Amino acid sequence: MDTIQSDNYPIYFDNSIDELVNFVNKGGYSRFFILTDENTGIHCLPLLKSKIGSEEGYDLIEITAGEESKDIDFCIGVWKMLIDFGADRKSLLINLGGGVISDLGGFAASTFKRGIDFVHVPTTLLSQVDASVGGKTGIDIDSIKNIIGTFTQPKAVFIHYDFLKTLPARQILSGLAEMLKHGLIQDAAYWAELKTSDLKNPSAELVHRSVQIKNKITIEDPHEKGIRKALNFGHTIGHAVETNSLINDADPLSHGEAIAIGMICESYLAHKKTGLSLDELNEIVKVLSDLYPRYTIQESSFDTLLAHMLKDKKNQGGKINCTLLTHIGQCNIDNICTEAELCESLLYYINL
Amino acid sequence: MDTIQSDNYPIYFDNSIDELVNFVNKGGYSRFFILTDENTGIHCLPLLKSKIGSEEGYDLIEITAGEESKDIDFCIGVWKMLIDFGADRKSLLINLGGGVISDLGGFAASTFKRGIDFVHVPTTLLSQVDASVGGKTGIDIDSIKNIIGTFTQPKAVFIHYDFLKTLPARQILSGLAEMLKHGLIQDAAYWAELKTSDLKNPSAELVHRSVQIKNKITIEDPHEKGIRKALNFGHTIGHAVETNSLINDADPLSHGEAIAIGMICESYLAHKKTGLSLDELNEIVKVLSDLYPRYTIQESSFDTLLAHMLKDKKNQGGKINCTLLTHIGQCNIDNICTEAELCESLLYYINL
Repeated sequence: MDTIQSDNYPIYFDNSIDELVNFVNKGGYSRFFILTDENTGIHCLPLLKSKIGSEEGYDLIEITAGEESKDIDFCIGVWKMLIDFGADRKSLLINLGGGVISDLGGFAASTFKRGIDFVHVPTTLLSQVDASVGGKTGIDIDSIKNIIGTFTQPKAVFIHYDFLKTLPARQILSGLAEMLKHGLIQDAAYWAELKTSDLKNPSAELVHRSVQIKNKITIEDPHEKGIRKALNFGHTIGHAVETNSLINDADPLSHGEAIAIGMICESYLAHKKTGLSLDELNEIVKVLSDLYPRYTIQESSFDTLLAHMLKDKKNQGGKINCTLLTHIGQCNIDNICTEAELCESLLYYINL
Repeated sequence: MDTIQSDNYPIYFDNSIDELVNFVNKGGYSRFFILTDENTGIHCLPLLKSKIGSEEGYDLIEITAGEESKDIDFCIGVWKMLIDFGADRKSLLINLGGGVISDLGGFAASTFKRGIDFVHVPTTLLSQVDASVGGKTGIDIDSIKNIIGTFTQPKAVFIHYDFLKTLPARQILSGLAEMLKHGLIQDAAYWAELKTSDLKNPSAELVHRSVQIKNKITIEDPHEKGIRKALNFGHTIGHAVETNSLINDADPLSHGEAIAIGMICESYLAHKKTGLSLDELNEIVKVLSDLYPRYTIQESSFDTLLAHMLKDKKNQGGKINCTLLTHIGQCNIDNICTEAELCESLLYYINL
């Protein structure tokens, strides 16, 4: 499949791990570091190591898998390991893992000694179609997602489709929510194709198509002043539900599971406010409800959810801001929603 | 005095506080925040408050004065206060203080919600002629200075010369070291003028001239790939001495006191390695020794000092890198110095 050209960096799809080795060898780096977690350490790192050959010239930094590792404390841990390993400004950080690894590793690298080079090797569907593309880095503080971060582009992204074969079904579903979002906000034909595909195992071609859509939007508006906000569809409510679940649930929602709930609620708001037809709303709800398990939201949690929404980065002047669909494949950004409207949309989900 | 134009932002010298109020009023910000410490809170904040008038529309964030406050823990404190105060992406951070405030505040702002606007109101001589210009932000980890940071330009700098009148003599001397450095690396005529000036009270014109020199260099090379390294003259050894003093001394060296030591040692190395004449070396040593108190460096601390130098950001591949003078007013960057040479230069200082 074609290499996609992003904002001064390539996104490789074919022979990606060979391309990575090639990139490292030609890059003139003093040394390199591989940031990984215990999952990718088992399932993905061996392939990298076998291609790299020599064990000299690099060090491993392994963190605990899971969203909790995106906290500033883990970031400080990564910085200290880079210091201890003697990383200099000509060092390279390879982020091998899911969105936590690419967001955290990107932030750590973009601020270490005022910025060293980094590349992403995304190993989950979610990070292949979303986190690894577009130059956002981020960490959490007090469970507020991505509250601290930078806009810094990686030097390259290496997408190795076969890594997806090591993933549990729930992780595939998590990434799938972002793919469905890409169709809903930008490309009705892609949405139609997704609907009729085997979504338990999205093909390499579908992954490539999602990256194309995300890349096109982020190139147009790298700093999220306008059209990039389209990518926030489902995320105003979805992020709040996700944060709340992360704090309270023994087995928290995945990102995609939460965004699927957010997309249902925000599609309901779109039907009320921006002209999404009832048929379209019902179609979206059906596709998402068939794929994602029901999740119980208590009415007593609405205040907490609204408080989380109020902390969303897209807000201005204390108003909650949503991206809403006008049709399947089209959207409007910057729709202020009242607390009453947001609660109504949560009730809509509860009563489905 | 003329406003100096930097990399897309102005540096004001005349009526600076009025210009600041004007900037805030016209900027379209949702709110603003003033980062200050207990010293500037007493000596400088009242003027700002009186010019701003209304106490609505902004919040104060006060930190403890001193280099210890540049630690990541204080940065997390600033981020959390911005969160608690409801700062959004259209907020402005005003850094009112010395280099600690501008470095820390600049870093906190450049990473909060992936970057909000900030301006500097430098209140010390050191921050007026050095830290506030050039777009470096930074914080310390484990006393390693500026190990984490970004290159992010402020939206404006407001230099109010009269703030210097509130400073103790030792703080004036701290900033003066950077002014002397500007002459030594770039402008022999400026050095000659400084030598014959009242250096206990540098004039506004001399401050303006130093800012011009620093600004010219940083515009040419914002990301320190080449000529900007000239500004590191005195800092390879000086930073190590400063860090060591900060860790061990009850009354640690100021930045300028440490850099003055570093400039003496590195001028000695320049005489040995890059052609600085003995007369020039003696002249530099005389000027600096007349201004700055003697400091006792133990030979037993050399290993520790070398270890600090090895952590310097400018190094590559584990070699220690110095900027050295060729003449007064001219320098060469990227001179690798051996541990033996560095120790010899420290002995030279000890035996003066």
